[in-house]
Amino acid sequence: MALAEAIAELEGVLGARLSTARAERDQHGRSETWFPDAPPDAVAFPESAQEVSEIVKICARHDVPVTAWGTGTSLEGHALPIRGGISLDLTRMDRVLEILAEDMQVRVQPGITREALNTDLRATGLFFPVDPGANASIGGMAATRASGTTTVRYGSMRDNVMALEVVMADGRIIRTGSRAKKTAAGYDLTALMLGSEGTLGVITELTLKLHGQPEAISSAVCAFDTLEAAVETVQLTIQMGIPMARIEFVDDLTAQIFNEANGTNFPAKPHLLIEFHGSEQAVAEASERFGEVVADMGGADFQWATTTEERNRLWRMRHGAYPATIAHRPGCMGLVTDICVPISRLAEAVSATKRDIEAAGLIGPVVGHVGDGNFHSVLLLDPEDADEFKRAKEVAGKMAERALAMGGTVTGEHGIGMGKIGYMRAEHGAGWDAMAQIKRALDPQNILNPGKVVEQN
Amino acid sequence: MALAEAIAELEGVLGARLSTARAERDQHGRSETWFPDAPPDAVAFPESAQEVSEIVKICARHDVPVTAWGTGTSLEGHALPIRGGISLDLTRMDRVLEILAEDMQVRVQPGITREALNTDLRATGLFFPVDPGANASIGGMAATRASGTTTVRYGSMRDNVMALEVVMADGRIIRTGSRAKKTAAGYDLTALMLGSEGTLGVITELTLKLHGQPEAISSAVCAFDTLEAAVETVQLTIQMGIPMARIEFVDDLTAQIFNEANGTNFPAKPHLLIEFHGSEQAVAEASERFGEVVADMGGADFQWATTTEERNRLWRMRHGAYPATIAHRPGCMGLVTDICVPISRLAEAVSATKRDIEAAGLIGPVVGHVGDGNFHSVLLLDPEDADEFKRAKEVAGKMAERALAMGGTVTGEHGIGMGKIGYMRAEHGAGWDAMAQIKRALDPQNILNPGKVVEQN
Ligand SMILES: Cc1cc2nc3c(=O)[nH]c(=O)nc-3n(C[C@H](O)[C@H](O)[C@H](O)COP(=O)(O)OP(=O)(O)OC[C@H]3O[C@@H](n4cnc5c(N)ncnc54)[C@H](O)[C@@H]3O)c2cc1C
Ligand SMILES: Cc1cc2nc3c(=O)[nH]c(=O)nc-3n(C[C@H](O)[C@H](O)[C@H](O)COP(=O)(O)OP(=O)(O)OC[C@H]3O[C@@H](n4cnc5c(N)ncnc54)[C@H](O)[C@@H]3O)c2cc1C
Repeated sequence: MALAEAIAELEGVLGARLSTARAERDQHGRSETWFPDAPPDAVAFPESAQEVSEIVKICARHDVPVTAWGTGTSLEGHALPIRGGISLDLTRMDRVLEILAEDMQVRVQPGITREALNTDLRATGLFFPVDPGANASIGGMAATRASGTTTVRYGSMRDNVMALEVVMADGRIIRTGSRAKKTAAGYDLTALMLGSEGTLGVITELTLKLHGQPEAISSAVCAFDTLEAAVETVQLTIQMGIPMARIEFVDDLTAQIFNEANGTNFPAKPHLLIEFHGSEQAVAEASERFGEVVADMGGADFQWATTTEERNRLWRMRHGAYPATIAHRPGCMGLVTDICVPISRLAEAVSATKRDIEAAGLIGPVVGHVGDGNFHSVLLLDPEDADEFKRAKEVAGKMAERALAMGGTVTGEHGIGMGKIGYMRAEHGAGWDAMAQIKRALDPQNILNPGKVVEQN
Repeated sequence: MALAEAIAELEGVLGARLSTARAERDQHGRSETWFPDAPPDAVAFPESAQEVSEIVKICARHDVPVTAWGTGTSLEGHALPIRGGISLDLTRMDRVLEILAEDMQVRVQPGITREALNTDLRATGLFFPVDPGANASIGGMAATRASGTTTVRYGSMRDNVMALEVVMADGRIIRTGSRAKKTAAGYDLTALMLGSEGTLGVITELTLKLHGQPEAISSAVCAFDTLEAAVETVQLTIQMGIPMARIEFVDDLTAQIFNEANGTNFPAKPHLLIEFHGSEQAVAEASERFGEVVADMGGADFQWATTTEERNRLWRMRHGAYPATIAHRPGCMGLVTDICVPISRLAEAVSATKRDIEAAGLIGPVVGHVGDGNFHSVLLLDPEDADEFKRAKEVAGKMAERALAMGGTVTGEHGIGMGKIGYMRAEHGAGWDAMAQIKRALDPQNILNPGKVVEQN
């Protein structure tokens, strides 16, 4: 690595948009969770694909790592430049390039956040549905194959990205996919890039699918006596084909945490948060059928959020679950788990997890995108308590093993980064070697976000 | 290539299930369309992934090509072993391995056909929706990323395959994906294999998503005065969010061909064939709203297929369009085109295509999965008439260029094989080189279906 030369050349290209200031480096060397800080040697702020290409070419020439940075909200240390080099901050590439309303598509730069995008789309009657809790960048969401509360209806980034522009490890700019709804033209490079976490290329443009803002929306919360009853309600709802747009589980402890953070007064019981989208008639039909299922399962305290404000408050509360959880135990940090299992095993997986957490003497509320079989526990840790950390890692390990034994995955949506790399062999076996072969083929010098997703060198 | 040794070793493993008989070789050297015959040196009939792995290992050792064979219905010469070697016929691996009804999933071997699978599923209340016209194998459908009339509602193979078992070029057996509804665990090898046409691995098992058989179904045909009116009806239907399960366009000539083949009496006009799936109430609502759009667009001759029999007859007729078209001009062969464009450009693309066909003095009816923006013309050719063939290739070339200029793709569903390889550079630019890099990384000897999809060596 010839760092000094690389930085000098990058300054030549970017001027003041190449920063080696301590504060910038620190900010790009920190993650949302428990990973040790790992600041880059410099931070670059490109404004075009052409600049990204030049940066990558310079770094390749000098063997300097390049790690893309969206908004830094990923939870497994994804964006930490653990081998130093350049943090490629994409926040200046945050424009909507073209709204293709007739085709319900939009072309955007990677640095735009999902909330900014939806604000820009408001007048069109269209929206982009994927909503990880954080206000993440669209590029980061693509790179982690993110999903969220609406995935049960609208799909994840895998289903909502049609085409990409990508700068490869040698600086080549390629285009993947097309604006057609489907294509059978060769290898699916779009899908390969989605979830590759900046290790195969830097996304510099995305063409996204949009959806029509629903004519009618109705949301509700209801409480259950047991988590089994709540989860079984989800299973039945799916089996009956009731078309929900969101169905979220929160456990008894999370209900309490909601009360602490928002001044609500939910009973300390498991709850489901649900939403329906469609025509007035379809939403009314779905709500009614869902109400019947809930009643059969002994659900109670049904509260419908009828106004837009009430609805927004509900989902703000849900999306604020992570900071509220962290605030529940002052001074703590969070170890966030993220398994996803076949729906038929969900109740078993959630209750076994809660038992593990209790047995380990930890505090760890459980929330989940249960319509997809995906749930998290945030294990709250005292940063000074090494033993507590060890027990938390053990619980996380048990969850991962159980997910695999059930035919599931160690990460439903957060991705691998560095935090889950230790489970890759267990999940993929020889498939993990195939991933490394692809990485080596497309990035033989291992300069793109090295140390993440695959093992190389 | 040390063919004789390879064949001897393969006989050791497979016994009579390795055939060098002329008839077998001829059958596996023929395609559905105009490509010259290219028989393999031998045909292998494995019965397990383990056997596939052994076959591939033997072939790798002796540098002998291996080309997988599902049912041979692909339209771009995909399954032709153009460099000789072994045709790997998967028809003996045709079992349903496990029906996972609670999770609406099924594990199958690759050789089962879509019709056989749905017959096996009938009693479960579930079905597998993807329906290319032919009764293709599920493995072949996965390998070509197939889609069909129901893709507008249920998606293509990309959306309906959750996990794969794949034998790689060195004989390693890997598993991709999981039984969870979503995963962010590393590179999406499942998606990479889908559409790779047997060039990256041989699929030996698939886990598929199933869907509930709809409570109610209603189908209809209606005629339009102009193709623009028919296509605009499709656009409006999508924009209004009317949830259709199928929406197929057939042009005036195809309507005539239907009459010739089925004794129907459709007017010689463009038609739409449509179907709705859902609850009684939802289907009724959708049918009514669609009826209003059609009336506004001047559609007429509305015929509802109310009984299961009428409905089956309708879709049998649609799926029989290809042989009926071939029969329309006795002794001819077909050059099948397959472009897909953004919906906003569809009317323009279809009418320009029809003008090109007329100007070239060709016979070429147009049909399309228009809800996806995908349509075909089957250009009917006299095999003896070189000039006609040349003109047909020119029309196909213009269609492809137009699709790309509109932001679409040269193949919506049939794939590349050898027929479309000449358009790969135009569609993907430097992305095509990235595909070749992946191919070289995973199959450095280029033994898996060489000469297809990518250029190597
Ligand atoms: C409170 C909270 C709730 C969350 N809830 C969810 C959830 O429900 N679902 C979910 O999926 N995630 C969730 N996350 C995780 C996180 O929001 C997602 O992983 C998100 O997709 C990360 O986007 P980002 O812009 O912050 O990316 P970053 O964290 O900046 O980067 C993530 C990875 O992508 C790479 N990357 C970023 N931009 C690009 C680019 N343009 N090209 C190539 N690679 C790039 C980086 O190198 C890194 O490897 C949550 C996080 C928090 C803090
Ligand atoms: C009348 C007619 C209508 C059609 N309509 C449609 C349509 O609507 N939509 C559509 O998508 N297609 C359509 N097709 C094309 C064809 O049916 C599809 O491409 C189908 O997916 C091919 O399946 P197959 O089993 O016949 O595969 P094959 O033709 O046997 O093989 C296709 C390719 O896949 C590879 N392959 C096969 N099995 C495997 C395996 N197990 N592992 C790895 N590679 C494998 C082969 O090597 C080859 O490259 C139509 C064809 C006809 C004749």
